Amino acid sequence: MKGFDQEYLPEDQLLFNSLVRRIRRSFELFGFMPIETPSAELIDVLTSKGGVEKEIYAITRLAGDPTEVRTARGALHFDLTVPLARYVAMREHALAFPFRRYQIQRVWRGENPQANKGRFQEFYQCDIDIINKGNLSYLAEAEIPSVIFRVFSEMQIGAFRIRLNNRKVLRGLLQYFDVPDDRAASVLRILDKADRETSSTTIEGLEREGLTPKLASELHELLSFKSATTQAVLETLRDLHGNELLKTGINELTAVVKAVRDFGVPDHAFGVDLSVVRGLDYYTGTIYETTLLSHPELGSICSGGRYDDLAGHFTNTKLPGVGISIGLTRLFSNLLEKKMLRRPDKTPAEVLVTTMDPAFLNKYFDIANALRKKGINTEVYLESAKLGKQLEYANKKNFRLALVAGDGEFSRNVLQAKDLLNQRPIELSLDTFASDVQNILRHLKRIPSAQESYENDTDDVSSMKDS
Amino acid sequence: MKGFDQEYLPEDQLLFNSLVRRIRRSFELFGFMPIETPSAELIDVLTSKGGVEKEIYAITRLAGDPTEVRTARGALHFDLTVPLARYVAMREHALAFPFRRYQIQRVWRGENPQANKGRFQEFYQCDIDIINKGNLSYLAEAEIPSVIFRVFSEMQIGAFRIRLNNRKVLRGLLQYFDVPDDRAASVLRILDKADRETSSTTIEGLEREGLTPKLASELHELLSFKSATTQAVLETLRDLHGNELLKTGINELTAVVKAVRDFGVPDHAFGVDLSVVRGLDYYTGTIYETTLLSHPELGSICSGGRYDDLAGHFTNTKLPGVGISIGLTRLFSNLLEKKMLRRPDKTPAEVLVTTMDPAFLNKYFDIANALRKKGINTEVYLESAKLGKQLEYANKKNFRLALVAGDGEFSRNVLQAKDLLNQRPIELSLDTFASDVQNILRHLKRIPSAQESYENDTDDVSSMKDS
Repeated sequence: MKGFDQEYLPEDQLLFNSLVRRIRRSFELFGFMPIETPSAELIDVLTSKGGVEKEIYAITRLAGDPTEVRTARGALHFDLTVPLARYVAMREHALAFPFRRYQIQRVWRGENPQANKGRFQEFYQCDIDIINKGNLSYLAEAEIPSVIFRVFSEMQIGAFRIRLNNRKVLRGLLQYFDVPDDRAASVLRILDKADRETSSTTIEGLEREGLTPKLASELHELLSFKSATTQAVLETLRDLHGNELLKTGINELTAVVKAVRDFGVPDHAFGVDLSVVRGLDYYTGTIYETTLLSHPELGSICSGGRYDDLAGHFTNTKLPGVGISIGLTRLFSNLLEKKMLRRPDKTPAEVLVTTMDPAFLNKYFDIANALRKKGINTEVYLESAKLGKQLEYANKKNFRLALVAGDGEFSRNVLQAKDLLNQRPIELSLDTFASDVQNILRHLKRIPSAQESYENDTDDVSSMKDS
Repeated sequence: MKGFDQEYLPEDQLLFNSLVRRIRRSFELFGFMPIETPSAELIDVLTSKGGVEKEIYAITRLAGDPTEVRTARGALHFDLTVPLARYVAMREHALAFPFRRYQIQRVWRGENPQANKGRFQEFYQCDIDIINKGNLSYLAEAEIPSVIFRVFSEMQIGAFRIRLNNRKVLRGLLQYFDVPDDRAASVLRILDKADRETSSTTIEGLEREGLTPKLASELHELLSFKSATTQAVLETLRDLHGNELLKTGINELTAVVKAVRDFGVPDHAFGVDLSVVRGLDYYTGTIYETTLLSHPELGSICSGGRYDDLAGHFTNTKLPGVGISIGLTRLFSNLLEKKMLRRPDKTPAEVLVTTMDPAFLNKYFDIANALRKKGINTEVYLESAKLGKQLEYANKKNFRLALVAGDGEFSRNVLQAKDLLNQRPIELSLDTFASDVQNILRHLKRIPSAQESYENDTDDVSSMKDS
């Protein structure tokens, strides 16, 4: 079946894993706790909140009752928000609030069934949410961009901009432009698509929703007010002297912008952008999108917003929250294709111990174990093969170093280390080879790049940008 | 829907993640490379090799054609071996052989449909395999136990024993005991269950397969020859002076045992056990099971074996291999229930910066950012709440340290650090608090256990057992 687009060769899977590790590390640095939920939920749960039936995959036993699909009770989750709502509602009393969770899992969504007939769509999402009982401070909304900033700084994929807007500002503007309440949702959908449409298509769409040509054009102009600074956008909004909803929204947005700065996000990395709309109806406060400056065509690589009630379908407790989601599979495919990802300096394939002479197998194993004790990923070549074939394998698998020794070397208490990048052989003493190899690898890692290693991401945050 | 058994509270999810990290790290230390495959495969692929239809979950669109399930082309994988076979066959020319891969993913298996009607069964498997083209050295079979040894030593879940057997020995024994070829599979199934049955049930079962009472009893006795040393078992086998197949098997087993020792696995951690049978028919050489000595009732926590051809269904290239699988979800549930897992010393919840006075928000944020730069997971309490409520939250979420400061502290350039384990408050200077906190955490971590931190597992292998 199609849908193998998220299946990679090992060297690319390593890169993917390295991104996951960096995202996880960033989330944890801000005190988010991990959860995972089962891949399937009750169909009722999934359709309770925005689930589109034709996009959902039901699961049924292959050899089950042929009518089972009509009565199937389970289906694969299409996002991580609906499972989160069910999870929090089920565990309201066990969890500490504000509940800060991250979740990195596959989701399944049968987007565009016509175009992708027979294609199974599966991808990774990386989500964080902060949920409280009763109320949620605007500071939670302001903290989210600092997490986004950390995540994408760590990824080292170039400059990006976190674009903020506020749903009350948007709804206030719609009132200001005389859009009837029952048209608000469809007008927002048009504005959401405005980035990808020509001005005239957008303006015509707005007119079809009942706006006069003048208002349609003014609304469109206001929302595409791109090059302005955050300061200028906020002033323009204030100068409208609009309705109460608009004023409330402007005040919220102003406070959030100030606090985002306080949280340490530099001005060049974020700003207000009124064209950020977000499709989902349930956002009520700040909304976010994030764009790579060098690749705006990728669209938003991280989006989300503030909502007033996470789990109204499951509990009477009011659970306001704020969250964002990174669609990692799509982002990764694009970064891979555009060669925007630095190869990890440290890979599972670091050292190959070749086995020139089976009489010395014991020594080869001991050499490997000594290196593993130093934390060096080490493989012993186990098949009977000429040395040339073994080195060929080392090259194909991108080992950094191959160790070679036979009778000649062992009798002199040495071994040869072949640097596979530079083809430079070095002789090492068997008394010190483990630390020698460690030093060589440390040195080799500096050759491809003087920057921080891609893999030093578990505890080392020395590469964290000043924020 | 049921099947939430693999859903945990965040603190338990942390433990689960910590096991995954240790397993991954151990696999990588031996040069295994990661791959992931899509959750779904073509149904043809899944049923090509041991897939039992009633255990497989098909996927269909919820709002699709009601007959679609009968013609569904995709279903969720029930193990990671079938996807591996498809993957290797598809990429035969891109991969370096011997191909050493690890794969840690969810699999879905509708075991026992009657007993678990409506229950969706999902669990994690952690697999490694070594696959070569044409031939595969017995050394690959001998290396596997050293990886198993490393994995379970790192998990610190008590003593375990890696039990080895050889399929040729088993088949040779069946010939020796006059079991007709067409009964071999069913006799092996009976022997596979012998551990969980009374002797008489097993012996009666063997008799029903055509063995004489005397031979049934002798075969049973030989296979339950538990307390013997590996040396004694091999000698007993040799003393039978059996058929050629048995002799070949004994020679293979003897060579593998010697090499396992050479690879550094200590004698107490492995041994030959003739009662290891493994259900799957496709194993042809060494087979493995692993048992926790203090909890034999958990059965094998890591099993696998050598097979002669991975992907005969997909390619004409002969691909012999050897692999093992850890059923992590089941193992984790058991370890959790029996409280056999050490809590990680380092959790995402390390330091809570309380916010007593909103006038100082900026300072609180700066304190948090300074700690994050040191790699310390830090959360700022963002809601308006009395200090008491904030500390309650810190306790509930198991923070190690809460930092408290208001006008009084800031005017003296200090802050209070509350050790939430011992309730011991310490005053720190604002000039040095970040390194002070780092030191305190390092010290605190030694209190619950003097052993190595559970989380220092990325590069630090100082805790690796001598092998």
